[in-house]
Amino acid sequence: MVSYKEKDNATELDAMLKRIHDLVIQHVKDGQFANSSVVNYLPPDELYKAIDLSLPEEGAGIDGTFELIKATLEHSVNSWNPRFMDKLYAGTNPIGVISELLLGVLNANSHVYHVSPVLTLMEIEVTRAVGQLLGMGEHAGGLLCAGGSASNLLAMVTARNKLFPSIKKTGYIPRPFNPQAEYGKLKVFTSEQCHYSIEKAALVLGLGSDSMVKVPVDEKARMRVDELERLIQQSVEQGETPFFINATAGTTVLGAFDPIRSISAVAKKYGCWLHVDGSWGGSAIFSDNVRENLGWMDGSELADTFTLNPHKLLGVPLQCSMVLTPHQGNLLFANANTLEADYLFHGNPYDLGAGTIGCGRRPDALKMFLAWKLYGRKGLCRRIDQAIEAATAFTDLVRNRPSLKLVKDPSLFCQVSFWVMPHGLESQVEEWKKDPAVYKEKMTLVTRTVHARVNQSGEFLVDHAPLDGVPNFFRIVINAPTVNVQRDLAHLLDTIEAANRDIAWSEVLA
Amino acid sequence: MVSYKEKDNATELDAMLKRIHDLVIQHVKDGQFANSSVVNYLPPDELYKAIDLSLPEEGAGIDGTFELIKATLEHSVNSWNPRFMDKLYAGTNPIGVISELLLGVLNANSHVYHVSPVLTLMEIEVTRAVGQLLGMGEHAGGLLCAGGSASNLLAMVTARNKLFPSIKKTGYIPRPFNPQAEYGKLKVFTSEQCHYSIEKAALVLGLGSDSMVKVPVDEKARMRVDELERLIQQSVEQGETPFFINATAGTTVLGAFDPIRSISAVAKKYGCWLHVDGSWGGSAIFSDNVRENLGWMDGSELADTFTLNPHKLLGVPLQCSMVLTPHQGNLLFANANTLEADYLFHGNPYDLGAGTIGCGRRPDALKMFLAWKLYGRKGLCRRIDQAIEAATAFTDLVRNRPSLKLVKDPSLFCQVSFWVMPHGLESQVEEWKKDPAVYKEKMTLVTRTVHARVNQSGEFLVDHAPLDGVPNFFRIVINAPTVNVQRDLAHLLDTIEAANRDIAWSEVLA
Repeated sequence: MVSYKEKDNATELDAMLKRIHDLVIQHVKDGQFANSSVVNYLPPDELYKAIDLSLPEEGAGIDGTFELIKATLEHSVNSWNPRFMDKLYAGTNPIGVISELLLGVLNANSHVYHVSPVLTLMEIEVTRAVGQLLGMGEHAGGLLCAGGSASNLLAMVTARNKLFPSIKKTGYIPRPFNPQAEYGKLKVFTSEQCHYSIEKAALVLGLGSDSMVKVPVDEKARMRVDELERLIQQSVEQGETPFFINATAGTTVLGAFDPIRSISAVAKKYGCWLHVDGSWGGSAIFSDNVRENLGWMDGSELADTFTLNPHKLLGVPLQCSMVLTPHQGNLLFANANTLEADYLFHGNPYDLGAGTIGCGRRPDALKMFLAWKLYGRKGLCRRIDQAIEAATAFTDLVRNRPSLKLVKDPSLFCQVSFWVMPHGLESQVEEWKKDPAVYKEKMTLVTRTVHARVNQSGEFLVDHAPLDGVPNFFRIVINAPTVNVQRDLAHLLDTIEAANRDIAWSEVLA
Repeated sequence: MVSYKEKDNATELDAMLKRIHDLVIQHVKDGQFANSSVVNYLPPDELYKAIDLSLPEEGAGIDGTFELIKATLEHSVNSWNPRFMDKLYAGTNPIGVISELLLGVLNANSHVYHVSPVLTLMEIEVTRAVGQLLGMGEHAGGLLCAGGSASNLLAMVTARNKLFPSIKKTGYIPRPFNPQAEYGKLKVFTSEQCHYSIEKAALVLGLGSDSMVKVPVDEKARMRVDELERLIQQSVEQGETPFFINATAGTTVLGAFDPIRSISAVAKKYGCWLHVDGSWGGSAIFSDNVRENLGWMDGSELADTFTLNPHKLLGVPLQCSMVLTPHQGNLLFANANTLEADYLFHGNPYDLGAGTIGCGRRPDALKMFLAWKLYGRKGLCRRIDQAIEAATAFTDLVRNRPSLKLVKDPSLFCQVSFWVMPHGLESQVEEWKKDPAVYKEKMTLVTRTVHARVNQSGEFLVDHAPLDGVPNFFRIVINAPTVNVQRDLAHLLDTIEAANRDIAWSEVLA
């Protein structure tokens, strides 16, 4: 029995840390063997049998708990494995683990300065520094939130409260229903390929899915600015109030970057708040090549708010998401979201909780701060450049295999997406195309069938993705710096092609 | 320079874990010395001078990063110290640290099962088990959220979407503005002593602060059910739609428990959603004595949603918050918050992200699961009982000191709150009482003056709190199992009384 009374935490922690050390190191080593499994996948009913997940009346003690820890490691996805390419995050790195350990030991809360002084200043400094990389200047800053969706939600609430402060008191009741309102039905404009968290935020705010206007994209999957302006004009003519434009910097599926600078001109013209959801692609701002040559985020300094998740492209552990602004940093959020009237806010600018929707908060800024300190801005730059280079090399590999067809050529960012032509039935694909519905259904089935085979072995974990108007396709995310083009990416294509040859397509597609 | 290419993460992590080991253990040891400081407090301008918080172009390498880690530990609050009694959380425990380390190593995301199979089942099982402790039966379950405010927000959004699903599509436009609406202005009912996150949630939803109805409390700071019903009736008569009643299980300031069972009867009568914010007190359900004798949460099974934060009273590291429901567990949230129509939801019940407002999520359930596994339900019960016993003993100590005056006698839960009578000017206090404004102003100044002295030394970190109608008072939170009544709590009172005797009150209060 573990007693709580007068126990010696230091001695117990010392023993437990020593005991978990080898388990942890072995797990990381396993992830480095390209031949080891990404996951020993079991469906829920089998996993329930494989692990004792009962919650006991009497404690299982340290031995029993370590049995569970071992089983957890054994049956979890090993995200250190470079062949985990399923999601927009990858495995973390040693400093990431150290920073989580440190946060655990500190068990601090970054809502008020006096209980988290160092962590508060780290948050202020790191959001200022990232904001300045985005070009937001001396008043740049921001706040950490519990993920990209939470950052996007905070941005939308802040926009609404700043533009229409009366809503804080009387609630949202637009014209024509409320003739006195200074706004009509509030409308949100975003690319049709944006992340669904933008719509979820609008639903939370009580704007309804009707408030969403999905703007068509160009051939590079970027928001069409001419269409944006046309749709805004149309909305204004209908007596609505366009108030929030979301540009995406790195879309979830294809990795497209909406043209921020020209979108900003439209936002200014119509008095809209410009938010950039850079949850995925925003971190690329650490790359000199991206800032100076590729120009993917040209105009980022014009955003009113900008979401950026170091837990994706920078390898910082989940969660680490920030929302940045050129408008006085965290004070923007405090002013917009305080329960007091806007002009009354004289709070301590170091009590960061004032700007959040919540109260207590995990000091996630530490994780980004330590990563930056260790690697430097240049180290993080190299990480980005390397991922982009690997994605480019992988795109070349795909292009050179006749059985594969790129969705976008060249790939737009760190995702590479493609279809697989069913082996032996390649000629039928052209037949199917005559009926778009048939084509979509058949080729989606092809993708899913190959995908299931590839993931089944546990050697790889990769994703397939949907997109309006086309069949599902493979979406491979290149993120981890440990990914090797030949060993991992060429081998993935070999595996896909072997599965393709092995599947009895005439039966599957019958 | 740390290279990303082909590096050996296991070797690097091994070295870094070994290097941080002694730092971490020393920090925990320091927290066990009752004579060591809780914090070497520096205001922001001085802390900036004491620590190098620059973010470099070139990486500082492992040595430079460890310098920063050391400085972070040195200048942070040591929450392992039992004399950190400022907030509703305390230091964590060894298994808490281990679980954060494990989450760091796994770097997993609990949005879909196939990337976090074990962690997903742990979340399902631990929310089911906690829900069942609350009496919610076989369909109990829930979701983990990023803190109590996030849980309360999810509960309110879910309530609105379930009761008035049209809002998901067309947005919130109540009668009489929209004569077709099936609801009038939505109103939220909560005790006047509730946590501010309830109002923040209503603001986020676009209901406005006008939507809040603050229900008066009785002499034990509990919501008055007669007043609740009267205020609901009044609202209905005005054509409004009461839809959400928040009962608090353990208020932030005094620790009051609203009477859930009788509030539930009112909720049912008027078709309202009953939410319980048990962020602070909810964890007390682990105690047999609380469930069977004290009955503080009698009727908890009648709540539609219930927030409970193991990161507060159970010592699980920040954040660990859950929202529980008897209505089919996580499926309730998935159905209410999916972007699809309610009846269309046929998602995988193991893909927990569907029920959240966001997408990616840190698998915080692991932390609660491992704590439960190690200590057992009975171990967690003892932790609660011990905290309640210590708070009772501390209340006795306060009562026996004539210079102190309890705000509530007996104390309501694990907070003990009291005023200090200014030494030598005790007779003036009675004078001040003749003018309530003077009394409040003077006694608030007394509290703040003594409070500043007590915290200044760094020996203790305690809080003062405001409450409508009375002067600010000391609010001491008894939570950590390492708190010793004589060594820590009696000594705190000695320190307060010494400060009181030392202060030149006639000057301060002039």
